[in-house]
Amino acid sequence: MAILTLLTDFGLRDYYVAAVKGVVLSAAPDTVLVDISHDVPPGDVEAASFLLSAAAVTFPAETVHLAVVDPGVGSDRRILAVETDSGRFVGPDNGLLTPFLDRARRVVAVDRPDLYRPGPGATFHGRDRFAPVAAAWIRGVSVEDLGASVPDPVRLHVPAPRRRPEGLDGRVRHVDGFGNLVTDLPAEWVGDRPCVAFVGDRRVHLFVDHYEQIPHGQAALLVGSLGTLELSMRGISLAERWDVARNASVKVRFASGGLPRN
Amino acid sequence: MAILTLLTDFGLRDYYVAAVKGVVLSAAPDTVLVDISHDVPPGDVEAASFLLSAAAVTFPAETVHLAVVDPGVGSDRRILAVETDSGRFVGPDNGLLTPFLDRARRVVAVDRPDLYRPGPGATFHGRDRFAPVAAAWIRGVSVEDLGASVPDPVRLHVPAPRRRPEGLDGRVRHVDGFGNLVTDLPAEWVGDRPCVAFVGDRRVHLFVDHYEQIPHGQAALLVGSLGTLELSMRGISLAERWDVARNASVKVRFASGGLPRN
Amino acid sequence: MAILTLLTDFGLRDYYVAAVKGVVLSAAPDTVLVDISHDVPPGDVEAASFLLSAAAVTFPAETVHLAVVDPGVGSDRRILAVETDSGRFVGPDNGLLTPFLDRARRVVAVDRPDLYRPGPGATFHGRDRFAPVAAAWIRGVSVEDLGASVPDPVRLHVPAPRRRPEGLDGRVRHVDGFGNLVTDLPAEWVGDRPCVAFVGDRRVHLFVDHYEQIPHGQAALLVGSLGTLELSMRGISLAERWDVARNASVKVRFASGGLPRN
Repeated sequence: MAILTLLTDFGLRDYYVAAVKGVVLSAAPDTVLVDISHDVPPGDVEAASFLLSAAAVTFPAETVHLAVVDPGVGSDRRILAVETDSGRFVGPDNGLLTPFLDRARRVVAVDRPDLYRPGPGATFHGRDRFAPVAAAWIRGVSVEDLGASVPDPVRLHVPAPRRRPEGLDGRVRHVDGFGNLVTDLPAEWVGDRPCVAFVGDRRVHLFVDHYEQIPHGQAALLVGSLGTLELSMRGISLAERWDVARNASVKVRFASGGLPRN
Repeated sequence: MAILTLLTDFGLRDYYVAAVKGVVLSAAPDTVLVDISHDVPPGDVEAASFLLSAAAVTFPAETVHLAVVDPGVGSDRRILAVETDSGRFVGPDNGLLTPFLDRARRVVAVDRPDLYRPGPGATFHGRDRFAPVAAAWIRGVSVEDLGASVPDPVRLHVPAPRRRPEGLDGRVRHVDGFGNLVTDLPAEWVGDRPCVAFVGDRRVHLFVDHYEQIPHGQAALLVGSLGTLELSMRGISLAERWDVARNASVKVRFASGGLPRN
Repeated sequence: MAILTLLTDFGLRDYYVAAVKGVVLSAAPDTVLVDISHDVPPGDVEAASFLLSAAAVTFPAETVHLAVVDPGVGSDRRILAVETDSGRFVGPDNGLLTPFLDRARRVVAVDRPDLYRPGPGATFHGRDRFAPVAAAWIRGVSVEDLGASVPDPVRLHVPAPRRRPEGLDGRVRHVDGFGNLVTDLPAEWVGDRPCVAFVGDRRVHLFVDHYEQIPHGQAALLVGSLGTLELSMRGISLAERWDVARNASVKVRFASGGLPRN
């Protein structure tokens, strides 16, 4: 059975998610539906992109991932279908699918009005366009038959983390529900060198393997679940405690290197 | 495979939704379960009725929709099974199923104590009565075998929107998670006539096709996803900004007509 | 088709729940996934234990229940697989599975590094260890092949309710989403004897069958959905109104017995 994952900013109080599912199941009845999240902050394409990238890698390669965080709904922004070796992706052409573009076998702009649901208004393409397109792809329509190739999909411009002789410069890529600060700094860039991390004027010296090793009330560095450095407090939201949000700068300095100038 | 949708006010923190699903899957193992929402405000039958009506239309006609928003649980209020050409519905006889009554082929009061789960207490009919009844219907029991026809199901008395020569009088039928005001006024009643909308002493002149056309900080009218007029701000909750709740009066006046007296 | 239920404290905003599901579906594609809850308070093993116990009883006996509330993730705490006549359970050896230990056919400490996903870091055993273990169990690996028997699993020490000649002494075992106080006192211990309940210095005299019988603004006793006494207000959170939390003492005194000394 085919799997379809769903990632939206629709929330769980409305009928919106269910309507998307109803359209998918009407067109592709044997689909297994899996929610990634529907609590993406409204219109937050960058957050959606991160979550989709982190979740999709665990699913079978033939899975279709439908992501609808789409502040441009109803405008002439395109709908993309992106085929990769490790997943198929449908979403608006607004940068959400950036993580999958470089390794795509094919990126097409969907142009299949014959598939669209004649829903009233232009505010719910999740139900009226994205869902039937995803269902068609699941049913066996080829990506070539969904639309023509797109040379210039919209990309998020996410600053890349940097390696320097004295350390690493990066940022908080995600604040999770526990208040952990997930950075974009690959843990392997540190290896086993002693280091200090700086978030604003806060310093973290302690490097641990897992949460239980963190002394109460202290912050620590560890290797997070995506292989990047993570900053955590035990049982406390570090993000709240330090008032740190996504995109905050994170610097790591090797103990043998100089400390950053604040 | 048969589909069962679930709509409740049980919330997602407790074991209540899972218990309903466990009973359904125990009795009808191949059922595909789809959540509509479990965040209906406690006891809010009108909200549940709206959400069910909006979602159910996207599902296959043979779907069973189980809705349990049931402040009268344990009392002698009846359990209804409503069969229509576009869905089958199980819920308490408290008005929740009003949108489906007029087009029902059959409305019965379920009377099958043999199906009920001998659960302790009388506070969880969702698990002990609704779930086994819905599972039995999915497994092939006919609606006639669920109970006798009911001539007088309880109905919600929802005021109907009105057309007048000078415009339309309606109300906010739903405030969605983005803070959009979904009205009960069919957009086709306006057509392409210039008009002004009034919510309390607020005026909206601008009519747009989709959210991105709304200038920041302004409110606009558009055709919502149910074909009714919707009032929105871009990226901001209009409901919060204006402190407007469900059932607030909404008046539309055609530009050639008179303006409403406040 | 096999059923896997999921109970975690991961929340619904992150990719964590979806990653667990992706790993399960990659290894055991025909699994039906059912969420119990992902809103367990972070690290609250006792709450998770209660919810799992209350939900699991409604599922088919061959269901695998995966529960990951695991503040010790990454440490050397063991992973348990518990087989009973009414369900199979996978979770950390931290007390979460206490309710199932006494009736277990087998309790093993999982020792199958060959199954584990080589995920980076040690912070996400839900994805990297629990999920592949649960999937292997679903696919037919026997409990004996998951690991060796454990004579000393960690147990929660939950105080047992007590029967006295003059009444019952217990506690609030759970505050549900409606603010009802679910106690640990079996309703059958009261039977039809007149009684008074005490929560702190609050008294409740009224015993009803269901919520609609409770006069507005009053608290009442009833038989809850697990067969224990429950204290409720109608349409109002009693827990908030009285500022009562889990583990608060609840005393019941038979009308013929003495009243408790405050």
